[in-house]
Amino acid sequence: MPVRYAPLNPPKRLLLGPGPSPVEPRVYEALSKPIVGHLDQYFFEIVSEVHELLRLVFGTQNPFTMAISGTGSAGMETAITNFVEPGTRVAVFANGYFCDRITDMARRQGAEVVRLEKPWGEVFAPEEAREFIYQVQPQVVAYVQAETSTGAYQDGQAICQAAHEVGAVVIADCVTSLGAMPVEVDRTGIDVAYSCTQKGLSCPPGLAPITLSERALERLQARKSVNRSWYFDLKLLAEYFGSARRYHHTAPVSMFYALREALVAIAEEGLENRFRRHQLNHRAFVAGIEAMGMRMLVAEPHRLWSLNTPCVPEGVDDARVRQRMLAEDGIEIFGGFGPLAGKVFRIGLMGAGSTQENVFAVLASLERALRAEGYHPPASGVEAARAFYEQYALA
Amino acid sequence: MPVRYAPLNPPKRLLLGPGPSPVEPRVYEALSKPIVGHLDQYFFEIVSEVHELLRLVFGTQNPFTMAISGTGSAGMETAITNFVEPGTRVAVFANGYFCDRITDMARRQGAEVVRLEKPWGEVFAPEEAREFIYQVQPQVVAYVQAETSTGAYQDGQAICQAAHEVGAVVIADCVTSLGAMPVEVDRTGIDVAYSCTQKGLSCPPGLAPITLSERALERLQARKSVNRSWYFDLKLLAEYFGSARRYHHTAPVSMFYALREALVAIAEEGLENRFRRHQLNHRAFVAGIEAMGMRMLVAEPHRLWSLNTPCVPEGVDDARVRQRMLAEDGIEIFGGFGPLAGKVFRIGLMGAGSTQENVFAVLASLERALRAEGYHPPASGVEAARAFYEQYALA
Repeated sequence: MPVRYAPLNPPKRLLLGPGPSPVEPRVYEALSKPIVGHLDQYFFEIVSEVHELLRLVFGTQNPFTMAISGTGSAGMETAITNFVEPGTRVAVFANGYFCDRITDMARRQGAEVVRLEKPWGEVFAPEEAREFIYQVQPQVVAYVQAETSTGAYQDGQAICQAAHEVGAVVIADCVTSLGAMPVEVDRTGIDVAYSCTQKGLSCPPGLAPITLSERALERLQARKSVNRSWYFDLKLLAEYFGSARRYHHTAPVSMFYALREALVAIAEEGLENRFRRHQLNHRAFVAGIEAMGMRMLVAEPHRLWSLNTPCVPEGVDDARVRQRMLAEDGIEIFGGFGPLAGKVFRIGLMGAGSTQENVFAVLASLERALRAEGYHPPASGVEAARAFYEQYALA
Repeated sequence: MPVRYAPLNPPKRLLLGPGPSPVEPRVYEALSKPIVGHLDQYFFEIVSEVHELLRLVFGTQNPFTMAISGTGSAGMETAITNFVEPGTRVAVFANGYFCDRITDMARRQGAEVVRLEKPWGEVFAPEEAREFIYQVQPQVVAYVQAETSTGAYQDGQAICQAAHEVGAVVIADCVTSLGAMPVEVDRTGIDVAYSCTQKGLSCPPGLAPITLSERALERLQARKSVNRSWYFDLKLLAEYFGSARRYHHTAPVSMFYALREALVAIAEEGLENRFRRHQLNHRAFVAGIEAMGMRMLVAEPHRLWSLNTPCVPEGVDDARVRQRMLAEDGIEIFGGFGPLAGKVFRIGLMGAGSTQENVFAVLASLERALRAEGYHPPASGVEAARAFYEQYALA
């Protein structure tokens, strides 16, 4: 000592991977507002606005809606530790990495996990979902609405209906859908939905929104064994974030400010407008990808609007393409992993990142990088996307 | 929709409770810097600086030193879930609320917990600590170095020595000491120390620093049962934050920026200077309190420099005093709880909050509020503190 460190000066990245997504200046500004205490009246006002606004984006009337003081995976662990006890039979729809993580977490709680498997990128049809649930007769059903590892959207209505018929509660991973596309907790019948802040909500990572249906609440109240997790015990958290305001942990106040601001931005944009924007930019991006002679991994009706998974052209090294895009254009996209390693790109157009400008930027950057790696697209992706927007504007 | 919310405009509080503590402008600035991805090279550079600087404040050479993506209690849960398995015998030194929380968490893991109890505010002498550990023959020993509920500092050398003699690892809660006073992990012999960001480090809440000794690492590697927590599983976290950089969760990037900046500020101040500052302001505060005819709960040699617990004068309603201080002066202090409810104030002088100016401000505010509530101090606390500083400057 004295020790000298360089000033903090992060490189400017255009974050178009599977999250974190770009953060708006107003959210950064909120992050840097002076904190109050975690039991301050003002903090609870912010918390209450966060809860109200989370209901909006979740598409729910659930009174029990809150944000867990951890990242998206903390939301998953909250869902699992509160609803899975030793011996609980859990039916998991397994078509991507995050279903595997659910499986892992549930087994750590001593669950008996039964899985219905599909290749990564595919989804489950209503009839097979129903059949599986009736066959397993589980107490808990888990599926991933928006699979971040594959870009697939799983419709949950048939799953929830069948699950409720056999007396199970349904946990749905909405990490990559919340704020970017309809989650529709109530309409779908989801009992426990969790998400993160750094994707569709365009807030830095650090909190995990979660919501519980009446059915889930009853299950929680009836639970006999004590939750193995104290930090994620929803009974204790309800006493802190609910009307009792009983001290549990010291909530990350600045993150609540940021989430509040990100959610207010969503309310101001209007949920329908926001979803339309995501869908439009997703479709323009796909038009560009297809013009470039590439195909999308996920079949058309099951694609996430927030996260695109175009297949890597034959013979192209995806890591080199991504490194070029980062080094030359400052654009972060991700590759696939597990069974999709080297096979897909994962390109997010989420929250503040879902713009026409970014669609053009990422298509142009991708095209340059692919050319440099020896793949020559038959047509310009940017031009195809531009044509798509023009056609859409005329329609 | 459209929905309108008022701009985020938190009240200015002088945070002199048990945390969060005041945050310096440079840390807020860091919080609002543009994020990069959680697997970005730049993020890992920041992480590596955070680890290095945490070693400095922890007083350790432990290579395994990191920050958990949750608040201080997440640090506790990380320590417990990784080192306590079903049937583990855990000896807990119980003299405050956070020992009770450790007990609760350990029992949730199926531990056999044996407690040595003391009234809140007292500490354990070397001989009784030694005797207890030899009698229990535990695999894990847990104590609270800096008890936030009482203001007491527990010296850990005798505890660690005896624990190691019987083959146990020692977990120490350093939530209210880190960055404000010497934690001295290596010198003390602590195997697992955890803390938070929002007290001595003067960073908003949101991360939990933790460090593991060689002995703790060996215990972790030898563990047979799988950690019931996935989110806090240190084996997985070591693969993310270590050289493998294997994706685990999406770390709260902005919080890492903030923690890095808060730690750089500490390194620039110099650890010894910082500790001296805390000790000096603590002593000036105590001089003021005693001049006002009040006594400190904790005996002189065992007081935390970061958190003061003056006893509430006979007949005074502590809640009314605190409400006055908040309403009239914007100063947040806390009361006691559990067996100390209504009996002590908890007044923090931590990190950026430990200043001569704040000592005067809180003593003056406390005096006004006490007078308004019918307690008339025999002498001015501010004057006594001023005299203390003058005497100190001459010495």
